[in-house]
Amino acid sequence: MLDDLREEVFQANLALVDSGLVLLTWGNASGIDRRSGLVVIKPSGVDYAVLRPKHLVVVDLDGKVVEGSLRPSSDTPTHIALYKAWADIGGVIHTHSTYGTSFAQAGVPIPCYGTTQADFCPGPIPCIRALTKEEVETDYEGNTGLSIIQHYAQHSLKPLEYPGAVLMHHGPFAWGKNAMAAATNGMVLENVAKMAVLTREIRPSVQDIPAYITEKHYQRKHGANAYYGQK
Amino acid sequence: MLDDLREEVFQANLALVDSGLVLLTWGNASGIDRRSGLVVIKPSGVDYAVLRPKHLVVVDLDGKVVEGSLRPSSDTPTHIALYKAWADIGGVIHTHSTYGTSFAQAGVPIPCYGTTQADFCPGPIPCIRALTKEEVETDYEGNTGLSIIQHYAQHSLKPLEYPGAVLMHHGPFAWGKNAMAAATNGMVLENVAKMAVLTREIRPSVQDIPAYITEKHYQRKHGANAYYGQK
Amino acid sequence: MLDDLREEVFQANLALVDSGLVLLTWGNASGIDRRSGLVVIKPSGVDYAVLRPKHLVVVDLDGKVVEGSLRPSSDTPTHIALYKAWADIGGVIHTHSTYGTSFAQAGVPIPCYGTTQADFCPGPIPCIRALTKEEVETDYEGNTGLSIIQHYAQHSLKPLEYPGAVLMHHGPFAWGKNAMAAATNGMVLENVAKMAVLTREIRPSVQDIPAYITEKHYQRKHGANAYYGQK
Amino acid sequence: MLDDLREEVFQANLALVDSGLVLLTWGNASGIDRRSGLVVIKPSGVDYAVLRPKHLVVVDLDGKVVEGSLRPSSDTPTHIALYKAWADIGGVIHTHSTYGTSFAQAGVPIPCYGTTQADFCPGPIPCIRALTKEEVETDYEGNTGLSIIQHYAQHSLKPLEYPGAVLMHHGPFAWGKNAMAAATNGMVLENVAKMAVLTREIRPSVQDIPAYITEKHYQRKHGANAYYGQK
Repeated sequence: MLDDLREEVFQANLALVDSGLVLLTWGNASGIDRRSGLVVIKPSGVDYAVLRPKHLVVVDLDGKVVEGSLRPSSDTPTHIALYKAWADIGGVIHTHSTYGTSFAQAGVPIPCYGTTQADFCPGPIPCIRALTKEEVETDYEGNTGLSIIQHYAQHSLKPLEYPGAVLMHHGPFAWGKNAMAAATNGMVLENVAKMAVLTREIRPSVQDIPAYITEKHYQRKHGANAYYGQK
Repeated sequence: MLDDLREEVFQANLALVDSGLVLLTWGNASGIDRRSGLVVIKPSGVDYAVLRPKHLVVVDLDGKVVEGSLRPSSDTPTHIALYKAWADIGGVIHTHSTYGTSFAQAGVPIPCYGTTQADFCPGPIPCIRALTKEEVETDYEGNTGLSIIQHYAQHSLKPLEYPGAVLMHHGPFAWGKNAMAAATNGMVLENVAKMAVLTREIRPSVQDIPAYITEKHYQRKHGANAYYGQK
Repeated sequence: MLDDLREEVFQANLALVDSGLVLLTWGNASGIDRRSGLVVIKPSGVDYAVLRPKHLVVVDLDGKVVEGSLRPSSDTPTHIALYKAWADIGGVIHTHSTYGTSFAQAGVPIPCYGTTQADFCPGPIPCIRALTKEEVETDYEGNTGLSIIQHYAQHSLKPLEYPGAVLMHHGPFAWGKNAMAAATNGMVLENVAKMAVLTREIRPSVQDIPAYITEKHYQRKHGANAYYGQK
Repeated sequence: MLDDLREEVFQANLALVDSGLVLLTWGNASGIDRRSGLVVIKPSGVDYAVLRPKHLVVVDLDGKVVEGSLRPSSDTPTHIALYKAWADIGGVIHTHSTYGTSFAQAGVPIPCYGTTQADFCPGPIPCIRALTKEEVETDYEGNTGLSIIQHYAQHSLKPLEYPGAVLMHHGPFAWGKNAMAAATNGMVLENVAKMAVLTREIRPSVQDIPAYITEKHYQRKHGANAYYGQK
């Protein structure tokens, strides 16, 4: 079932490990087949060294396992919440990557200090508020997704324009058109986070990049008249 | 003798090197066979590139070599002290991993700033007091173990709930149900230590993660109703 | 066409990835054949894992594609501006390498704190001013090149004596006698940038290296009587 | 000539690269045959990827090339000065390793914050004064060696007890009983330097390790009754 998606989600999971974003089992990637509404996701706590495409779990948008003998990632309800709220995303990843997680732990958005980040999103990478005690105790993973969705709605952010965020006390989530794009966005988030820490160390009073440069970079890569990359 | 344990302890020692926790010969892993009360441990100062399972040394709980022609790790009395005090552990590791050792040198516990650490232990990673001159001069390595045990007793910490600590002026020790679990715990300790340094750099006034989130994460992974990982 | 140059530029592009300076597609290298006035450059946004010499694009000094079916790097006008202004350079590279980019984002030149940098250039590595709104909106990439050229002219810097600079809000550009020398200069810039950050962390009041040591090191490697390296 | 020494010095040079201490051609290792008084050293500026044992240069203690068609390292006079002053050393290395060089650039000794360093030397790793203008302009590399020797004499430091130092504005030199021991000492220096930076970041007011712990660690590894390692 969903063999192509299964292979792509498998590769996205491996990419998180190969790029150093995921240590041990601290991460997961999923992808959705919008026609059937089925999600392929990493099984919970399985060692990446033995993970094979056949181990991935297929769940529906109610979180019910449709195929697979292993438990899906414990973060599955977060992935599902995002897929249900945002029709234009096709993949989601979650990691505890070092620099992204450090911003999450500090409860600080990743400031937009340069064109590397402006190529990715047109402003700071959001830091989502901490969950309340009630949210944690009722449906922790589902409410994690809802807190992200709420933040994007309240600040009128488009998910594909800001394809990643850090969750206070927790770590990064990222998403994209598909699972591999989500993994790539996770790498971008981690690397701009590292450069942001260093930039502030070099000049504590540094200001965000001027809006006209951000706009130029974002548009040349993602705008209607984008000229970065191939046609 | 104890071939399976020997192989596992060998793999745990290699894992410390492969994960970058051990440079040169700065580390060791051991495992215990509780039935016989015998401990398999790395020989002292042997280059990891030439280390083979047959080189590992078998010692009893009095520290006497039962099998092997090489000297056991100079830290053997520390391992033994922990095995004797804590019946539920099956493996111990010691490293001079960069971030863990830096916390040890600073004499500072590793604060619990996020869910990465809460998945591992439900609070800060302890920093054990420095040994006194008398303790150093009488039975240095044995007293190192006793100082850890004393700290856990005084603070009512369960060894498997807080499966690692840093020793002031020295470096990390970690333990677990077996040697490989101890090695994994050493990796977790190192990585949360790195994120703690970065978190404080991003926000010097950062507070520890709220207890209700720590509790949730610790319980979903280690509690009676844990749902992280496979059954 | 230009097979040798094509191969060299290909190797220079790979060197940027292999040395960790380029993540994803964040970088490019080019080389010029001065006889024909043709430039070989990386295609825009192509994954390095699939990049082959045949994919490189040949452009003339007006930016017109002379050979190749792919779009050249979006930074091509910057490369061309440098080739046109500076007759003695044969290669140009651009990266978003972590430490160099952090200095760029901070808007701070890389101070010359030691002989590692003095072996490379006889002073601080320049930080080029931010482009104005008008410059960004008219010919962004061409004006990027002009801002570098302007800085070098105003400060009487010779391009091959200071073979790299960081552009405010953006990142490093470097150049050299050929594409591979430019790539090497990019590596030097990144590494001295990292050491500069650490040096200031160790001693915030640190001063630049005395001029007489800088002069000695620069001259023993690059002067008329250089004795570093082979004849 | 001196084939065994040649092979060992070759391996020591490679070890500097493999351990990440040497980027590009920023480093060199040598070894001495005390019977003949001949030194085997890396040729100057030769790429490590093509370096073979046959490329190493044999020089006498006057710096005259005895065998080899390539120029010896430009730092050869520093190596020779150390060999002439200190009869008990058999190998010397020089690197621009990141953390060691940063201490050198800051002009700060590497404080002894823990047992990792105490296992290596019984105190801070010395920072050698900057050379004067006259010293630089007359015999730069020879005077570099003399400044190290002078520091050790003035402070009554034994070369094999403190087998490495950082030179202000420049970088680390290390030495040992043979070339490979010198390379290993270079690795130790780099790693304790990194931990010292982090330790001060975690606790700016940190104090050096108490002398009684330093003494214990140094003696258990290097003293008359050492019990670390194999007999």
